Amino acid sequence: MQISSLIQIISEKDFIEKSNPILNGYSKILILTDTNVAEHCLPILLNLIPQLSTAEVIEVDPGEESKSLEVSNHIWQHLAELNADRNTLIINLGGGMITDLGAWIASTYKRGIPFIHIPTTVLAMADAAIGGKSGINHSGFKNNIGTFAKPKFTLLYSPFLRTLSPEEKISGFAEIIKTGLIADQEVWNLVKEIDPEEIDDQSEVIFTIANIKYEITENDFKEIGIRKTLNFGHTIGHALESYFLDHSSPISHGFAVGLGMICETALSTEVNNLDAKISQDIIEHLKWIYDPQTFALPKFEEIKRYLLQDKKNENNQIQFVLLDSPGKASFNHPISLEVIERQYRKSLFASNV
Amino acid sequence: MQISSLIQIISEKDFIEKSNPILNGYSKILILTDTNVAEHCLPILLNLIPQLSTAEVIEVDPGEESKSLEVSNHIWQHLAELNADRNTLIINLGGGMITDLGAWIASTYKRGIPFIHIPTTVLAMADAAIGGKSGINHSGFKNNIGTFAKPKFTLLYSPFLRTLSPEEKISGFAEIIKTGLIADQEVWNLVKEIDPEEIDDQSEVIFTIANIKYEITENDFKEIGIRKTLNFGHTIGHALESYFLDHSSPISHGFAVGLGMICETALSTEVNNLDAKISQDIIEHLKWIYDPQTFALPKFEEIKRYLLQDKKNENNQIQFVLLDSPGKASFNHPISLEVIERQYRKSLFASNV
Repeated sequence: MQISSLIQIISEKDFIEKSNPILNGYSKILILTDTNVAEHCLPILLNLIPQLSTAEVIEVDPGEESKSLEVSNHIWQHLAELNADRNTLIINLGGGMITDLGAWIASTYKRGIPFIHIPTTVLAMADAAIGGKSGINHSGFKNNIGTFAKPKFTLLYSPFLRTLSPEEKISGFAEIIKTGLIADQEVWNLVKEIDPEEIDDQSEVIFTIANIKYEITENDFKEIGIRKTLNFGHTIGHALESYFLDHSSPISHGFAVGLGMICETALSTEVNNLDAKISQDIIEHLKWIYDPQTFALPKFEEIKRYLLQDKKNENNQIQFVLLDSPGKASFNHPISLEVIERQYRKSLFASNV
Repeated sequence: MQISSLIQIISEKDFIEKSNPILNGYSKILILTDTNVAEHCLPILLNLIPQLSTAEVIEVDPGEESKSLEVSNHIWQHLAELNADRNTLIINLGGGMITDLGAWIASTYKRGIPFIHIPTTVLAMADAAIGGKSGINHSGFKNNIGTFAKPKFTLLYSPFLRTLSPEEKISGFAEIIKTGLIADQEVWNLVKEIDPEEIDDQSEVIFTIANIKYEITENDFKEIGIRKTLNFGHTIGHALESYFLDHSSPISHGFAVGLGMICETALSTEVNNLDAKISQDIIEHLKWIYDPQTFALPKFEEIKRYLLQDKKNENNQIQFVLLDSPGKASFNHPISLEVIERQYRKSLFASNV
């Protein structure tokens, strides 16, 4: 498996110095991005790295809908038309949608060409651009088709975050909370104090979180063990996200994971002895940021089929990551539909049931 | 990267003994095959391994056209409908089309599920089912989309070859010739004496060839070095195959490679000092089996764009594998279009130019 590196960039000068050497030696460079990022972040990048102004730019529509087989088909065709060869570099500039899609395209075109991620959102910096998972949505399921494929480099440059809306910051913040909760009590204590809307001022926290994820994924690339804990909040979260996507009212990944963490924290107390008081505190903090009452959440019956399709399932059992305590999690907890349903209703519908 | 094994099966009893232990422990088993193989080979398999009679069978149309994104889309959908999880095993039963397609599907569904190849053609046993390349055709180019992905096991059972037509045997024989020519002079001397139509009686030779390929690919999985030599005959071969596919008169892979080897043997003498007399002998032997005059070969101008899209190209240079001597080859020989054209015309159109 090729080497991958996480690079923190602290200034414009630093950007120029660190990116010049890693962009040499390719037959061609292409930039994959979406139309929003092309407007707000691409000019910043091209201004810093003038050599990229000759790079071909492939733009897709913003939003989760672009993580599709149809869009993939068009990009692959485009690459062939451009005579992209195995020594062509793809730069994925954007949020998690672009890094997931771009890694998928690059890892399958001619059986794999090199790619670099330049994430521009909190979600992508803290999570999606790190760890070498790629994917598109298929058959109504999130990331149901994809590969494990490492970028050569992921460049973290926090000024891109200034282009984000408050909602995008809050959404991406869910992955920051998650990594704190599962991996590091000190980081969690730090994260608790941050206003999600001001995360763009917290480049050190973002890099710390990115680095925790990087270490976990480097040590368990194929997700055989510890890496599974990064799925905390994602079993319920993905089911909700898939449900809303299928019902033509997509919600952002982070909000889905935020809601997922509420339910899975409750499950951690019922199934895994997470202290009840601590559990309540975490749930309250999560609800303060991701208020379940602001969503028309589906009945449990309606997300069941998504849970049954979760990639982590084995032998038809739904597997959860659960908290042991703040900063510590364990994985492969099978939970029955009955128990999941009870905590789903209790934690997410409390005041309206 | 997961472990992969090549298993030679010498009798019905041996088949039963060797396959039982490797089919245990999965949540579900699916068989991917084409309608021809489903008729001729599937009954043999189900008769030997009755536990597979409950396996879901996914059938696609025979022929290279099934190695498409459209067919992939249907199979992925089918897997989701069957609730296939990460512990579902796919058995790819068929020729190179099925093993290429099945490995692609398995390696991308939920970012990779386990699969086993049971090749039923000479081509698949000697080549396609070994080495962990997957792929589908895209944008008019052979295997332009794909992954590197190893089967857990490849089972070689030569009685399946009795179901083949003479043309299929002759086609698959090209990969046997190729492996002999590039890797082992003794094997090449053996191969020279075999009548391609009787290859089904040569299970030891097939296993020897498969094993040479297995060793080469295990030692250089990502095709950084020695593995490249397996592409001998495939630069011109793939271009011809893509040309005919695009012009709705597909020719079989082996015939394309046979013709490719004729031209690339000629190039080996012009560019790489392969002894002229030896070169002539090899070309004559190849022409005896793969007679260029029986094909309406395109003018060089018409295959140029395919050559320029070859996956092995770097920095827009067309790279060739060339013979040094029988049993020995070297790679990364860039050759100009002018020289390629000269030998293409001379070696393949000799009597009609």
